[in-house]
Amino acid sequence: MTQRINLPEIGLPRIVIIGAGFGGLRMAMKLKGKGYQIVLIDRNNYHQFQPLYYQVAMAGLEPSSICFPIRRIFQNRKDVFFRVCEVESIDSQNKKLNTNLGVVNFDYLVIATGAKNNYFGNANFEKYSLPLKSVSEALFLRNRILEDFEASLLEVEPKERQRFLDIVIVGGGPTGVEIAGALAELKKHVLPKDYPELNLNEMDIHLVQSRARILDAMSDKSSLTALDNLANMGVKVHLNSRVLDITDNEVTLSSGDKIFTKKVIWAAGIAAATMPGLTDDSYHKNGRLIVDEFLRLKTSESIFAIGDVAFVEGINGHPQVAPVAMQQADYLANFFIKLLKKDTAHKKGFTYLDKGALATIGRNKAVAERGKLFLKGFAAWVMWLGVHIYFLIGVKNKIVVMFNWVWAYLFFDQGLRLLIKPKIKNN
Amino acid sequence: MTQRINLPEIGLPRIVIIGAGFGGLRMAMKLKGKGYQIVLIDRNNYHQFQPLYYQVAMAGLEPSSICFPIRRIFQNRKDVFFRVCEVESIDSQNKKLNTNLGVVNFDYLVIATGAKNNYFGNANFEKYSLPLKSVSEALFLRNRILEDFEASLLEVEPKERQRFLDIVIVGGGPTGVEIAGALAELKKHVLPKDYPELNLNEMDIHLVQSRARILDAMSDKSSLTALDNLANMGVKVHLNSRVLDITDNEVTLSSGDKIFTKKVIWAAGIAAATMPGLTDDSYHKNGRLIVDEFLRLKTSESIFAIGDVAFVEGINGHPQVAPVAMQQADYLANFFIKLLKKDTAHKKGFTYLDKGALATIGRNKAVAERGKLFLKGFAAWVMWLGVHIYFLIGVKNKIVVMFNWVWAYLFFDQGLRLLIKPKIKNN
Repeated sequence: MTQRINLPEIGLPRIVIIGAGFGGLRMAMKLKGKGYQIVLIDRNNYHQFQPLYYQVAMAGLEPSSICFPIRRIFQNRKDVFFRVCEVESIDSQNKKLNTNLGVVNFDYLVIATGAKNNYFGNANFEKYSLPLKSVSEALFLRNRILEDFEASLLEVEPKERQRFLDIVIVGGGPTGVEIAGALAELKKHVLPKDYPELNLNEMDIHLVQSRARILDAMSDKSSLTALDNLANMGVKVHLNSRVLDITDNEVTLSSGDKIFTKKVIWAAGIAAATMPGLTDDSYHKNGRLIVDEFLRLKTSESIFAIGDVAFVEGINGHPQVAPVAMQQADYLANFFIKLLKKDTAHKKGFTYLDKGALATIGRNKAVAERGKLFLKGFAAWVMWLGVHIYFLIGVKNKIVVMFNWVWAYLFFDQGLRLLIKPKIKNN
Repeated sequence: MTQRINLPEIGLPRIVIIGAGFGGLRMAMKLKGKGYQIVLIDRNNYHQFQPLYYQVAMAGLEPSSICFPIRRIFQNRKDVFFRVCEVESIDSQNKKLNTNLGVVNFDYLVIATGAKNNYFGNANFEKYSLPLKSVSEALFLRNRILEDFEASLLEVEPKERQRFLDIVIVGGGPTGVEIAGALAELKKHVLPKDYPELNLNEMDIHLVQSRARILDAMSDKSSLTALDNLANMGVKVHLNSRVLDITDNEVTLSSGDKIFTKKVIWAAGIAAATMPGLTDDSYHKNGRLIVDEFLRLKTSESIFAIGDVAFVEGINGHPQVAPVAMQQADYLANFFIKLLKKDTAHKKGFTYLDKGALATIGRNKAVAERGKLFLKGFAAWVMWLGVHIYFLIGVKNKIVVMFNWVWAYLFFDQGLRLLIKPKIKNN
């Protein structure tokens, strides 16, 4: 497609930002009114708050509570242009992007496309597992869980019923742990009341972790606390265990164990979400874009990358987490602001300030650490709640999420067990 | 399918209720613990609050705020069995229902399937218009409106752009009036801020009514007030106007006018939602099931019908509105309770108590009437809000809807402009 996308030239240098996640959106917000034309591109018309996808999947929160319409953020702005489209390729030579809606030219390009699931090249993993990398996928997972409970009611054969009830979660990082804990709480507090016809003892929740510890990016203390919590909640944790194969009925582990289930949740790893057009030497062997300490692509003067997709050479990359993306967004926004003032003081490369890590396991159960500091239980859990509310975009979202949490805490109830499916026509 | 659905016999007479709308759900709630086995069937796992669909479509409320999980209502009950399925036919001779999941037998059957859109036999009306008879359809409509605004940004040709911006609403009943008013408010308060690139004067909202008055089930006062309000809000109301044809680009009215638009909302009429298996003489010529004053089908001793689908012979039917369905549910539940007590006192037929009618046009604008009483403006609007909150199921839903209304009232903002689309896999 050679048609140009309808986008006025406003006489300012144009920065195109691909991706309205933690990094891209924050850059656009910092750069508004600073003398650039900002063109923000995303495939959705909203920003999604990734750390709470799992609560959407567990029917604890609505998608709308953790999403925010991007146009709302840039209301009335004459220098920020938002377009909902998919980028198809980058033409770095001619400083152009090809999108499904047409061509967009740029003076500077910031790639903030984040990460996608890593299935390690196994087609079955991708085909038969349920991902959780967007609110749409979270909703789909919620519907699958609810559908399978309905289906289990109809199944008189215990073995067959088990395939609907059991759940396998692959990956023992924060997402896997959070899902496992939330499912255990659903099983304990909600499902027995909703399904008095079922014997919930038949339902097993499996967490499969390839390494020796869950939460292995955190300390031993955090890891053991989480393991202890999950075990107490009845989750079957398989350590040092890899998934060898997944079919639509069964998961085979490296131990030889087979788990009969139709429901496998994939939380095992991420890969950079890249796109065609850049030369091969732009990529590190891990798939991320190699940038220098100023976050500039080593293969192009005018292209930058931040967040999960960027790999800062020399320091061997940063962890693929939201705080890195946000700090890089701040750094790069400042760079552009200074650039326009011909300020040459901006000589210092990006450095990441690690503010610690948090993970929640369930009601009153979480771990938090920062350097040598370690918290667990209720205190860590409240800290987890507070941090997530703080970073969530939108005052109304903050209120709604808090209200939902208070409600769930008081009444032991995930209220949103609604199997709302897309339908175009009634007939 | 001859397989029987997994449903235990519990030694009580079985009442099967088809449909968990205003009538069916209320009957099930009244009959729990009264000595029957209640089997409630719906195609969704939730009850939907139809009067607020239009607010979901207008991005003012989330589907979850006006839906309630049916299992939540019957938690821990041993006499109420809920199944998510579609009824395929009724076998009144053998007292059996055929569903997509298998056969269900009944001692008594209550048909509470409500109504569907009436396209008056015109295939184009059905194909090219957007319905609003479920939350799924409301979400679809919301997405279409948002998509079309995004598309209009990309269109440089004014005539083409108009097709994305203009909206035609067919039907001047409460739903049509409410949608027209809500769209006019979006156009005034929200869209100019979200889309500073667009000239919103290009956007026209058309309301097409076949009769001489809008809200023609209400009094002249209500009708004229609503017309006046809509005109002040910039809605173009076409009275005495019928739609002759709809294509994907154009609506042709009986006046000869053609409106260029891709977006036609269908609110023009409803037809009873019936199903195969009953003899032709069970139906009135308007498509509703003929029942006697005891709400019993004239063609079967053990089958009853309530709500929009039922047509009480002799009194020439009741209006197809929620209060009728609820009053009929109460009446029929009482009948069954007395039946079990061998109480023969239940000789009095159903009578409908008309408690009046309400319609809202917009912020501080509504009409309410009861007999000779008439209210308009702020007082009627507050009454409208109160009545809807009162009948909404679920304390949490009531709180969330009220919070959303207060927020929208204070900040002139429909917060949920999220184009969240179903997606299974990310890749």
